[in-house]
Amino acid sequence: MKSGFIIFSGSVNRDLAMAIAQHMNVGVGKCRVARFPDTEVNVQLDEPVRDSHVFIIQSSCPPVDEHAMEAFAIADACRRAAASSITWIAPYFGYARSDKRRGRRTALMGRLIADFAEHAGVDHVIAVDLHSPQVEGFFHVPVENLTAVPVISEALKRDMDPGSVIVSPDTGGMKLASAYASRLGCTAAVLHKERLDGRETIVNRVVGDVRGKACVIIDDMISTGGTIKNAIDALLQAGAREQFIVAATHPVFTPEARTNLHHPSIQQIIVTDSIPVTHHHWRRVYVVSLAPILGEAIRRSLD
Amino acid sequence: MKSGFIIFSGSVNRDLAMAIAQHMNVGVGKCRVARFPDTEVNVQLDEPVRDSHVFIIQSSCPPVDEHAMEAFAIADACRRAAASSITWIAPYFGYARSDKRRGRRTALMGRLIADFAEHAGVDHVIAVDLHSPQVEGFFHVPVENLTAVPVISEALKRDMDPGSVIVSPDTGGMKLASAYASRLGCTAAVLHKERLDGRETIVNRVVGDVRGKACVIIDDMISTGGTIKNAIDALLQAGAREQFIVAATHPVFTPEARTNLHHPSIQQIIVTDSIPVTHHHWRRVYVVSLAPILGEAIRRSLD
Amino acid sequence: MKSGFIIFSGSVNRDLAMAIAQHMNVGVGKCRVARFPDTEVNVQLDEPVRDSHVFIIQSSCPPVDEHAMEAFAIADACRRAAASSITWIAPYFGYARSDKRRGRRTALMGRLIADFAEHAGVDHVIAVDLHSPQVEGFFHVPVENLTAVPVISEALKRDMDPGSVIVSPDTGGMKLASAYASRLGCTAAVLHKERLDGRETIVNRVVGDVRGKACVIIDDMISTGGTIKNAIDALLQAGAREQFIVAATHPVFTPEARTNLHHPSIQQIIVTDSIPVTHHHWRRVYVVSLAPILGEAIRRSLD
Amino acid sequence: MKSGFIIFSGSVNRDLAMAIAQHMNVGVGKCRVARFPDTEVNVQLDEPVRDSHVFIIQSSCPPVDEHAMEAFAIADACRRAAASSITWIAPYFGYARSDKRRGRRTALMGRLIADFAEHAGVDHVIAVDLHSPQVEGFFHVPVENLTAVPVISEALKRDMDPGSVIVSPDTGGMKLASAYASRLGCTAAVLHKERLDGRETIVNRVVGDVRGKACVIIDDMISTGGTIKNAIDALLQAGAREQFIVAATHPVFTPEARTNLHHPSIQQIIVTDSIPVTHHHWRRVYVVSLAPILGEAIRRSLD
Amino acid sequence: MKSGFIIFSGSVNRDLAMAIAQHMNVGVGKCRVARFPDTEVNVQLDEPVRDSHVFIIQSSCPPVDEHAMEAFAIADACRRAAASSITWIAPYFGYARSDKRRGRRTALMGRLIADFAEHAGVDHVIAVDLHSPQVEGFFHVPVENLTAVPVISEALKRDMDPGSVIVSPDTGGMKLASAYASRLGCTAAVLHKERLDGRETIVNRVVGDVRGKACVIIDDMISTGGTIKNAIDALLQAGAREQFIVAATHPVFTPEARTNLHHPSIQQIIVTDSIPVTHHHWRRVYVVSLAPILGEAIRRSLD
Amino acid sequence: MKSGFIIFSGSVNRDLAMAIAQHMNVGVGKCRVARFPDTEVNVQLDEPVRDSHVFIIQSSCPPVDEHAMEAFAIADACRRAAASSITWIAPYFGYARSDKRRGRRTALMGRLIADFAEHAGVDHVIAVDLHSPQVEGFFHVPVENLTAVPVISEALKRDMDPGSVIVSPDTGGMKLASAYASRLGCTAAVLHKERLDGRETIVNRVVGDVRGKACVIIDDMISTGGTIKNAIDALLQAGAREQFIVAATHPVFTPEARTNLHHPSIQQIIVTDSIPVTHHHWRRVYVVSLAPILGEAIRRSLD
Repeated sequence: MKSGFIIFSGSVNRDLAMAIAQHMNVGVGKCRVARFPDTEVNVQLDEPVRDSHVFIIQSSCPPVDEHAMEAFAIADACRRAAASSITWIAPYFGYARSDKRRGRRTALMGRLIADFAEHAGVDHVIAVDLHSPQVEGFFHVPVENLTAVPVISEALKRDMDPGSVIVSPDTGGMKLASAYASRLGCTAAVLHKERLDGRETIVNRVVGDVRGKACVIIDDMISTGGTIKNAIDALLQAGAREQFIVAATHPVFTPEARTNLHHPSIQQIIVTDSIPVTHHHWRRVYVVSLAPILGEAIRRSLD
Repeated sequence: MKSGFIIFSGSVNRDLAMAIAQHMNVGVGKCRVARFPDTEVNVQLDEPVRDSHVFIIQSSCPPVDEHAMEAFAIADACRRAAASSITWIAPYFGYARSDKRRGRRTALMGRLIADFAEHAGVDHVIAVDLHSPQVEGFFHVPVENLTAVPVISEALKRDMDPGSVIVSPDTGGMKLASAYASRLGCTAAVLHKERLDGRETIVNRVVGDVRGKACVIIDDMISTGGTIKNAIDALLQAGAREQFIVAATHPVFTPEARTNLHHPSIQQIIVTDSIPVTHHHWRRVYVVSLAPILGEAIRRSLD
Repeated sequence: MKSGFIIFSGSVNRDLAMAIAQHMNVGVGKCRVARFPDTEVNVQLDEPVRDSHVFIIQSSCPPVDEHAMEAFAIADACRRAAASSITWIAPYFGYARSDKRRGRRTALMGRLIADFAEHAGVDHVIAVDLHSPQVEGFFHVPVENLTAVPVISEALKRDMDPGSVIVSPDTGGMKLASAYASRLGCTAAVLHKERLDGRETIVNRVVGDVRGKACVIIDDMISTGGTIKNAIDALLQAGAREQFIVAATHPVFTPEARTNLHHPSIQQIIVTDSIPVTHHHWRRVYVVSLAPILGEAIRRSLD
Repeated sequence: MKSGFIIFSGSVNRDLAMAIAQHMNVGVGKCRVARFPDTEVNVQLDEPVRDSHVFIIQSSCPPVDEHAMEAFAIADACRRAAASSITWIAPYFGYARSDKRRGRRTALMGRLIADFAEHAGVDHVIAVDLHSPQVEGFFHVPVENLTAVPVISEALKRDMDPGSVIVSPDTGGMKLASAYASRLGCTAAVLHKERLDGRETIVNRVVGDVRGKACVIIDDMISTGGTIKNAIDALLQAGAREQFIVAATHPVFTPEARTNLHHPSIQQIIVTDSIPVTHHHWRRVYVVSLAPILGEAIRRSLD
Repeated sequence: MKSGFIIFSGSVNRDLAMAIAQHMNVGVGKCRVARFPDTEVNVQLDEPVRDSHVFIIQSSCPPVDEHAMEAFAIADACRRAAASSITWIAPYFGYARSDKRRGRRTALMGRLIADFAEHAGVDHVIAVDLHSPQVEGFFHVPVENLTAVPVISEALKRDMDPGSVIVSPDTGGMKLASAYASRLGCTAAVLHKERLDGRETIVNRVVGDVRGKACVIIDDMISTGGTIKNAIDALLQAGAREQFIVAATHPVFTPEARTNLHHPSIQQIIVTDSIPVTHHHWRRVYVVSLAPILGEAIRRSLD
Repeated sequence: MKSGFIIFSGSVNRDLAMAIAQHMNVGVGKCRVARFPDTEVNVQLDEPVRDSHVFIIQSSCPPVDEHAMEAFAIADACRRAAASSITWIAPYFGYARSDKRRGRRTALMGRLIADFAEHAGVDHVIAVDLHSPQVEGFFHVPVENLTAVPVISEALKRDMDPGSVIVSPDTGGMKLASAYASRLGCTAAVLHKERLDGRETIVNRVVGDVRGKACVIIDDMISTGGTIKNAIDALLQAGAREQFIVAATHPVFTPEARTNLHHPSIQQIIVTDSIPVTHHHWRRVYVVSLAPILGEAIRRSLD
């Protein structure tokens, strides 16, 4: 690509955007994202984008609708100002869990958001650890699904007990767990949900040997933290050592998360800056930055 | 149209939807619109829509992004459940003021929202007093732009001084003022914004005779109420009687509105239920319902 | 829906189509699907479809490209002949396993096929046990993803040992295994793939108690049969009784399947007629028909 | 943009195109636009456009359908010959007044023309003083809405009485009048249409002080000239001096225009070459060229 | 189809539309198609079309652009007024001869017009003797290509010499000639264009025995009449009797046609009313009506 | 175009692709096109295509569906890997004979394939001697329809009797025959199909003088060879010398072809490598390569 490029930040990831820009030795493009008194989004690009390759950095994290709409508004402004290409860098891509209908009469928001993004002018997407890889197929435009496993693994290597077991809190996360395990040279375990006697009670059965071991519970995102809490209970019952590290790419952290993750045996919670952690007083939360891998992805696309 | 129809309500206009349904001697379709802990919208239709004509009643009022996204989510759920047609009844259509770009590098949200709605499956739109009539052209699908002038006029006839002047607070509202004036048999006046000496100060010049008269200030929407406040100041200076009625279709009412409309000479504020007025303790606010005209519009479309 | 309906069969599922039509007390629509000498598909509908609801029954089973193209050709013929709606009933939907890219430079065929179908005129899809439920989101039009679990369970109830364990040969199939288990009142087990010592050798670890028990191995499809073969090896090693029933919705049966499934301890292979089993001399293959559930789905859509 | 560019002219604005090309130190691209004996348009580009940025200069002025279709035909020829981008420069954009429906059962031609242009391959639009700014939103592609106010103001500065009043002949033109007034340092006035006694007779009420003053009546376009004629009558009645300049961007000039504008007190009619003024014997018509601002717009887009 | 239907006529075929409507025992829908003073089309439907099946009868004959745009405008008005389906009956479909590019840098108008029609809302097309059958493939929507051969043959049977030869004036018309010949029980001949000595001179070589015979020259359309004139010259030279009937579906009749067809040995020119023949003083022109076959086509589509 | 380019070959034309690449002094891009055991296509690009201009060389020759789908799969892989442009070079474009419907209820595959290609990401098409030139209009994207006449003529010049007649075996091929005749300085003849006495028997009537002459029978493609066989019979009956050369661009060669073309008086069959001739033991088949003209076309598009 011969023309120049500009990195814009929506309202969510300003620090991350700055870090990415620094990584590339440029500044963040001037772009005001405000709200009119009636809450309507008000985007103003303060530099020309004509024939430039634009990278919009904006996670569609809670409140998802506002943040997604901001991304679309910036894309629309760039398109109408004749940008040459528009890449949406969604460090966290909201609505990815709505990747199928739950019952016959619900919406399939993941696909809808993909369509909206394309319609607004997005012609490339860069995401990180999409909740399900099939989300890529909801887009017609190219999607690059990066992974935070390497950068989180670096942090883990430094802090975790070398004999730890990597634990996936459900079978859906087994692939991720394997990725961590093979990178860290650890064994892996997984929790199976099982229904007892057909009743509502579900127990987590631990598959893999955790007895007396420190555990690193991994997941793609932490939302309410309920899954993690249940995993810890099950692991302790299975004889795991009271020494847990929780690692997840996306700190969605709903209000309940604080309570659910307030377990004394959690030593550390490692997440990325795909979503800014405003709970900065959580001493145990350690944030690794996606800036290097996102910067690298931009660089690759500009070569 | 031979198949049946269903009226669904988003989270905004439940009372209006019920009134419309009553008008048509049916119930409101069961449809849950909730939010997951991570703020993602969770729509669940609780009755079959296959081959039915669906009417979704949902204003995209503040917070606009959530309310618009709800409308799209319901439409998507209806489309994927094989509804025969999907009409979005937007008593208030947000982002209509974003009908052109302000400067070269802003978004044109009105068109974007129109495109999103169509993409989600909306194939008819019914709106009321759209901020600018051109918004219709942002849609490819049929748009019916109804007006609340008749129902508000009924309320005015009862309460206003027969010799009142209908006042448009800016030249953009002159057509609306004429509509009211001719229906109520009144004269009309309009305020012109004028810049003094090229400086920033703008004065409102009153065009039309208001001296000693009661005024009915009309507008399509009241947002911050600032325009109304300035209009009253100018009218008083032009000798109008201290007796004002304010009438507008859409009570957007931002937080500032309360202060701006707290003028002692405002006797009454007449609005519709296009947006629920939660400030129910505003004694002077009188709400007329759009249920009859929206019900009528649905009936016409089903004939 | 008021107009009539017609059921057409592509070249794949003629018997199934006839059974479905009988279920609905109609005949199969006359439709010739042939090939010109140069292999180009030659579709000829022999009855009018104008304003009719057309149901095209055609699995895109191997050879997938021909069978998919036939479905598209029939849909195109129906659309150009002004059919009122076109539902593609794909008892087996090929390319569903291509639901994400394997590496950065491959195709995502699942989405492409969905787009092609819609472009050819398909406006509804009915499928059975789609390989991944996210495939639904590759379509913009409504998709009904039926399941063969109930009809296969009926067959199992009759033939299996009441104390059998339902076994999923990989973790991806756990949801399906649970569905069978809860319907049959059995316990479930699952095989985990594990890599030994980081080397290429993968072992299947059995999770769940199978010792001394008969096993029902379930899957959504049987392709080469390799997965089944490995599962049996692992189950035997884990102490399972030498008494297996294999049950899967889709008998894709590649040429290797015969060898792989020629295990003496397999008592029965239960599949549906989503794909005709031409290996009729396989005495142990028992075919249950999808006709009732597909007929029911058509009936529902016509109510 | 790295590749070259070509300027083509449709049949309307050949002189303007030449002037623009000269402004950019290039020639006008060879392109024959003829008609077959049966009136079908026959476009022939006589130079390669592959990977070039093409600028098509063509006003869709009367006869609008032919001129619009020519623009589409040239765009189609460029697209099929693999042009890299296609910008439609419509100095006058016809059908812009059809920006909303007049009644429920009319066409909305403005949007239709926008869609046609995009479909033919237009991916950028440059227009001048669009009748309503919302027309921009009828396009999905970027639209640049230039204004002739500066170039017409230059002509006015030279010829008008310094104490003139800028008059908008209707309230819709007030924004334009303000733009002229602030650029020329004049006061502004506006004519209000008022209906007397509910009868059909409409009078123009002059708002602003015009007594004894020379007037510059401005508008975006002059079509039949009826509006101008009525404005002059009203201004004279309000005591204006018998000394008028009429200034408008687009000289649409229908056949009636000549009669309507044949008022002895009109000293000059200033228009642009957005539409060629074939009435060259109108001594009082003075044409300022859009070539500089259109040339500048092209240059900006090539930087 | 259960809902009602309406037949609208554009400005071209009012008599034909009336005849078709009579054929169906209905009246022609009220629809005004006028022009604003600036030549912009002004369509006004004077009856409701909501949920009706609309049939728009309008040939895109010269001047093609206006007539095509009228058809699109009516379709747009119908679509925006929520018609249930829109069928464009184009008795003559203009631009059909632009079915391929002549050279690398021309437009392909046939496809463009098809796209425009679909975009305006046309979802069915009924045409008569399309210049090339491939034009059907330019449309995505269903096209019914009717033929006037039977109705013209009826007229021929009455008037022609029983021993006539059916002559195609070029090889492209051979299929049409065969259709006539087999229906009338005649032999056929064809003219081959041949280039003599590689020079520009082209001669028509008659293939088939015409010596001493009356000839019926047939074609799909008569435009300038030049082809017919040359055919007569060649046939006479080949010994044909001086007794010609010319029969063609579409009387495009450019101004030159009168001269070219003023040959004393032409006894009759038989055409249809796909285009009104305003040259009513041409005594030798005999017009057969398409009303029966078009009425029949509408009836079929409503069954 | 500034970025690089890559030539990929599907499974059909590997030799031709290599020849083209050599012509351009580059290698063929590494791209594996395989099949999974269940026959699903498995495309893997082994080099980066981001921002490259990709040329995919793949004839959709028999088996057409597989070969077409391969082309689409490669295009999809390139699009999702962010190629800058994707040109499908289809030396032979299958389904081109399905350019109109044969009867009311058949598919129009030519258009469908065109739509599929565009949807998969193809934005330019290069084809050779398309069966009908109108196929170009089935595409919205630019199509370059090259001709093999010059390269085949070179071969003919060397081998044919200078006094040969160029014969088109049907009237549809007359344009092609003229092209050959004028290039080779020969006369041309054509065969007319005639129905005797309205019965089924069709005879080929030779138009043009072939008595005692050697004939070069030309066509765009040879499929079953039946047309050629019948032509030879008719030519011999008309007195042609027993010395035939057959020349056609596309050697589709169905299984029957061998028998039909096994006529002792055929001296040579000249075809191109648009489709690999696997019947290499046909001594009389002579293959001329399209590599130079396709290479030239690529070169032109990169200038």
